[in-house]
Amino acid sequence: MRAVVIRRGESRPTLANVPRPTPGAGEALLRTLRVGIDGTDHEVIQNNHGGFPSGDDYQILGHEAVAVVEDANGTALKAGELVVPTVRRPPETNKYFERGEPDMAPDGQYVERGIVGAHGYMSEFFTSSPEFLVSVPDSFAEYGFLVEPISNSEKALEHALAARSAFEWEPESALVLGNGPLGLLTLAMLETPSSPFQRTYCLGRRDRPDPTIDIIERLGGTYVDSRETSVEAMADAHEAVDFVYEATGYAKHAFETVDALAPNGVGALLGIPGDWEFEIDGGRLHREMVLQNKMLFGSVNSNVRQFEMAKKRLAAFPDWFVDDIITGVYTPEETDAAFEKNTDGIKTVVVFDTR
Amino acid sequence: MRAVVIRRGESRPTLANVPRPTPGAGEALLRTLRVGIDGTDHEVIQNNHGGFPSGDDYQILGHEAVAVVEDANGTALKAGELVVPTVRRPPETNKYFERGEPDMAPDGQYVERGIVGAHGYMSEFFTSSPEFLVSVPDSFAEYGFLVEPISNSEKALEHALAARSAFEWEPESALVLGNGPLGLLTLAMLETPSSPFQRTYCLGRRDRPDPTIDIIERLGGTYVDSRETSVEAMADAHEAVDFVYEATGYAKHAFETVDALAPNGVGALLGIPGDWEFEIDGGRLHREMVLQNKMLFGSVNSNVRQFEMAKKRLAAFPDWFVDDIITGVYTPEETDAAFEKNTDGIKTVVVFDTR
Repeated sequence: MRAVVIRRGESRPTLANVPRPTPGAGEALLRTLRVGIDGTDHEVIQNNHGGFPSGDDYQILGHEAVAVVEDANGTALKAGELVVPTVRRPPETNKYFERGEPDMAPDGQYVERGIVGAHGYMSEFFTSSPEFLVSVPDSFAEYGFLVEPISNSEKALEHALAARSAFEWEPESALVLGNGPLGLLTLAMLETPSSPFQRTYCLGRRDRPDPTIDIIERLGGTYVDSRETSVEAMADAHEAVDFVYEATGYAKHAFETVDALAPNGVGALLGIPGDWEFEIDGGRLHREMVLQNKMLFGSVNSNVRQFEMAKKRLAAFPDWFVDDIITGVYTPEETDAAFEKNTDGIKTVVVFDTR
Repeated sequence: MRAVVIRRGESRPTLANVPRPTPGAGEALLRTLRVGIDGTDHEVIQNNHGGFPSGDDYQILGHEAVAVVEDANGTALKAGELVVPTVRRPPETNKYFERGEPDMAPDGQYVERGIVGAHGYMSEFFTSSPEFLVSVPDSFAEYGFLVEPISNSEKALEHALAARSAFEWEPESALVLGNGPLGLLTLAMLETPSSPFQRTYCLGRRDRPDPTIDIIERLGGTYVDSRETSVEAMADAHEAVDFVYEATGYAKHAFETVDALAPNGVGALLGIPGDWEFEIDGGRLHREMVLQNKMLFGSVNSNVRQFEMAKKRLAAFPDWFVDDIITGVYTPEETDAAFEKNTDGIKTVVVFDTR
């Protein structure tokens, strides 16, 4: 079958012909419809890491997918059903997976499909145990792969709300750092009717006219140009915000977030920067966190419950939004173009099949 | 009446004769028994801040007190009843005080008795509305002033547990940074039977033999000498811990805490450092927080509910512990000696009266 892979020693993904997987006992065979590409895929490619699935010299890419049950293989799934797979899998069973919280498993207690230690979904077929598949409605065939990135933001928001549950927190304003696909999906999440936020901001560094700025404003958010207003200056230029969601992977943003937060506010960090030494006024930041009860936390991955939340959220997004953020639709044969870093595009997807 | 005050422009506290306060409507008159001294008092003295109570050129010190109701003045209190006062008061009423959460009020929405904008308790008498007084048993006459510092740690622990409530957190180990009075009180708190921690550590920089090291070990904790084992090296030297409580005010500790934490761990910052610029590997710390779901938060002050928790906690402390940490007992006439920074001593208290 066709699969988009990164081979050991190579720095660009290629379309390969690999064996079609055979479902083991308790596993279903899935036929892939669409697979999204995100920043993590580019990191996997650039780092050409050693985390290839054991025994293989290549890794099938892709961790954001929507697929059809091709062969239920005796599981409770139904052939023809639409599903979205989660990302983490247990190398061997452990308490985090038993609890349904693989997102909280530490290093070494998980592999990640398409990222580290396991093949991804960017192939005509893949196999999975049903416990790692979330059923989605037929209407999700074109954009269901967005459930995965949204689920990461659902986790971050869930943890932020829990983190401030020891007192009466009344969050009103939120700032999303980054206007890439994850930033825009998160802004849309924060703008749905069930969100607690009345005012949202989204930071980027693009000139008008720009489609991401149009999306930010159409969602109801305020665009903040980081070249004019730094994260630290946010409170003066607009307002100190109750919630910051960092999706830039720019390490200074993590620390500048303390200044952007209102008293009792919380910042969620989701970017994954490389090493970078720089100077901070650590005394001032420490003091500010204490005297104003501020909080910072890191959040990675997501679990089935958060996928279910993301599924509901995605269904509540305006139709125009999903259409507007999917700007690149490619076939597997167009792998080179799909993985080109196009600064004008927003979200890219590789289409293997249609419903 | 006698009062220990800091006068405008002076850098040492003195015993003064000030007018005895008259309780207003709805206020009781309290006769002070004992008032503890802590690091905040020394900061108030050193900074000789401009936050004197309006109209006065001096501030009565002290925010850790135990007192007797001298005149209930029509309130529901009973004359002779023992109480511990909380610290924050509303400049004018606001939602934080209405909710019983003055500890979450931002700058400008509170004054603090003995700290900023209001007289403290280091005088023969003080007045207070009953809503800011916590009733304590008669047995608390000698050490009830410890309820205030413990309540700050109760708040930090309560917020830490809430902050990790979105998943199944199983904390086992805790590290207290600082073996001053607050550090030791916190270690005792973490060692009570209702605490979730099986293993505790306390960081200091003292040579054996030393009374604080004896206390740490008698409580069941492990002493960590920061000159041999840095906070960053904690994981290698002992173990990565689930909870870090910072009570040193040493800003680098705030950032080194990320390395001391186990995956999914949380660090509470309570120290209040001055400005201090230094270099960090911000990229690595940011990435570590994200990939291991780590969290840092600042915590200040405490509310009546947390005073009540501290009251129960104090009653559960071993008797020897309270005796061992109160190492300096002074009369108001010995103000100079009481405020001398004695590195051998642990907790100092000024005694105005006995039960």
